[in-house]
Amino acid sequence: MLTIALDAMGGDHAPKAEVEGALAAVRNYPVAVTLVGREEIVRAELDKHDRRWAKLPIQVVHASEFITMEDSAAKAVRTKKDSSIRVASRLVRDGKAIGVISAGNTGAVMATAKMVQGVVQGVDRPGLATTLPTKAGTPVVLMDVGANVDCTPRMLAQFAVMGEAYYRAIHHTDSPRVGLLSIGEEDHKGNELTRAALPILKSLPVNFIGNVEGRDIYKGTVDVIVCDGFVGNVVLKTSEGVADLIKLMLREEMTSSPLAQAGALLAKGAFAKLKRRLDHTEYGGAPLLGVKGMCFITHGSSNGNAIKNAIRVAVEFAKGDVNRRIESELTEWAESTATPTRAE
Amino acid sequence: MLTIALDAMGGDHAPKAEVEGALAAVRNYPVAVTLVGREEIVRAELDKHDRRWAKLPIQVVHASEFITMEDSAAKAVRTKKDSSIRVASRLVRDGKAIGVISAGNTGAVMATAKMVQGVVQGVDRPGLATTLPTKAGTPVVLMDVGANVDCTPRMLAQFAVMGEAYYRAIHHTDSPRVGLLSIGEEDHKGNELTRAALPILKSLPVNFIGNVEGRDIYKGTVDVIVCDGFVGNVVLKTSEGVADLIKLMLREEMTSSPLAQAGALLAKGAFAKLKRRLDHTEYGGAPLLGVKGMCFITHGSSNGNAIKNAIRVAVEFAKGDVNRRIESELTEWAESTATPTRAE
Repeated sequence: MLTIALDAMGGDHAPKAEVEGALAAVRNYPVAVTLVGREEIVRAELDKHDRRWAKLPIQVVHASEFITMEDSAAKAVRTKKDSSIRVASRLVRDGKAIGVISAGNTGAVMATAKMVQGVVQGVDRPGLATTLPTKAGTPVVLMDVGANVDCTPRMLAQFAVMGEAYYRAIHHTDSPRVGLLSIGEEDHKGNELTRAALPILKSLPVNFIGNVEGRDIYKGTVDVIVCDGFVGNVVLKTSEGVADLIKLMLREEMTSSPLAQAGALLAKGAFAKLKRRLDHTEYGGAPLLGVKGMCFITHGSSNGNAIKNAIRVAVEFAKGDVNRRIESELTEWAESTATPTRAE
Repeated sequence: MLTIALDAMGGDHAPKAEVEGALAAVRNYPVAVTLVGREEIVRAELDKHDRRWAKLPIQVVHASEFITMEDSAAKAVRTKKDSSIRVASRLVRDGKAIGVISAGNTGAVMATAKMVQGVVQGVDRPGLATTLPTKAGTPVVLMDVGANVDCTPRMLAQFAVMGEAYYRAIHHTDSPRVGLLSIGEEDHKGNELTRAALPILKSLPVNFIGNVEGRDIYKGTVDVIVCDGFVGNVVLKTSEGVADLIKLMLREEMTSSPLAQAGALLAKGAFAKLKRRLDHTEYGGAPLLGVKGMCFITHGSSNGNAIKNAIRVAVEFAKGDVNRRIESELTEWAESTATPTRAE
């Protein structure tokens, strides 16, 4: 059975959400979960939920320290050698788990996974991918959303291969459409980075459809979108900001008259459903693609359901053999692009 | 009386929207409008609206050519020497108008204004600014949104000075808060460009509050946000995309049951009001800050009301003496920063 190492001390609601998610996952999916954290705390939390948890495929592994959201990622990774995320990553490195999931400090989780688990052959830098909803109803994967603020054209190309392999495995599509986030569809539109990346992306063994724009992200006309981590982070946070603004404006407008108030009341259910559809946790959090094994980062505010979903997606990831695909495609591509260079 | 040169052939609804906007503006504001375009077409359109328009402060200046949205901006600017936007810009250069307004091809308008009208002293590159609504109800100016895809730290600093002067003049605030769009509030967060720009922005004679994030754009906690034109364009188009997605999702959810349908019907007025609040044309389009005189670019789909609003904002711009402020502040700043450099 596949075993997931779950950082039990990561999120805002740790270890409650982690324990709930782990229990729900092992009851619903063919998976074992190793909870990593302060043993006495995690065991006590498990006991609260189900005194017979020892009969389930759940283990607890002790880690004496944990990294908080307020910790500087760089410093915490350097100094807290026995942090829960570090110990969880070691389980992956040592073959005792297939991947790690954490709702903790994103910077610290990424740095630890890269350092401890290592990087898939052919990958220069792992990248953080996130899944967003679209008007077409299909999901779209955006990558990188914050692991690498300054990128080379080659890194964007590798993100395309990684994002595409991930999309195929998780969303079961044969030939996802891959786009480069730019400021116009025409090839000459873009900044120095995207213009340099475009010809490289065209040489990849993926269904590359060219430049796409910000307004295409949520349309469903492209499945995997690559960008540098600075732009990806701005896209995500801008999207949150727009959604918040619209929510507030509608609320204001809908309480401005008794008739609109009645409308607001009746529309309440629609808003709740909308919120669920926009909820990224449905997609199991963000994978750091390109690390050996797996690393999924879920939102700090993740509840038990979000953790359970992350475990489900991690299982799909493993079944889809994403890392093997990434490695073989990047190797193949490196070989194919190496030949003409030698011939020149 | 101030005279505005209005490109009568620019937008999707030209010259109808332009003529409507011009007529409404001269009737409501202390302003004269010179409509630039194919004389017979513009005069015929004016006649449709008001045969006595000759008594109003409206003039028509002939231009034999015009640039379409499909034209390559670079090529059209080079070859169409008698385009309506070119002739309008010449009126500004020759002192016959204080500024130009166009709903036409953004790239062509920007290139023409820079070339024909020239650049304010102290400005390396003009930048396109746009005004967005916020949760606080105050507007926020985002700059650059597409004039310069690759920027230097010094350009971002100049955008801050230009955007701030514009904000003070148009929104009548003494000390607008200026922020740098980045991926975290801490000084060390950001990419190469923003990290290099941060210390320069701190040296400016503006109320600089440091890094801001994508989610801060629509909050109303910052008044002027600077970024490079690539990121600014992605922000704008992503925002449009999110708004479209939410609209569709709410519509779907609200027709899913008879009760929700009733809610949707009652909420309809709220949506219409919301749309108006999100409508950028309320703010008069986007000024290309840093060109001599003025250059306002309105949306291609601008109607008469949008054109009228652009003329109103242009008048405010002139009264606020924005260019003189930009010139004196950039000169002052250049002098103040030059001293320590010489002392080193």
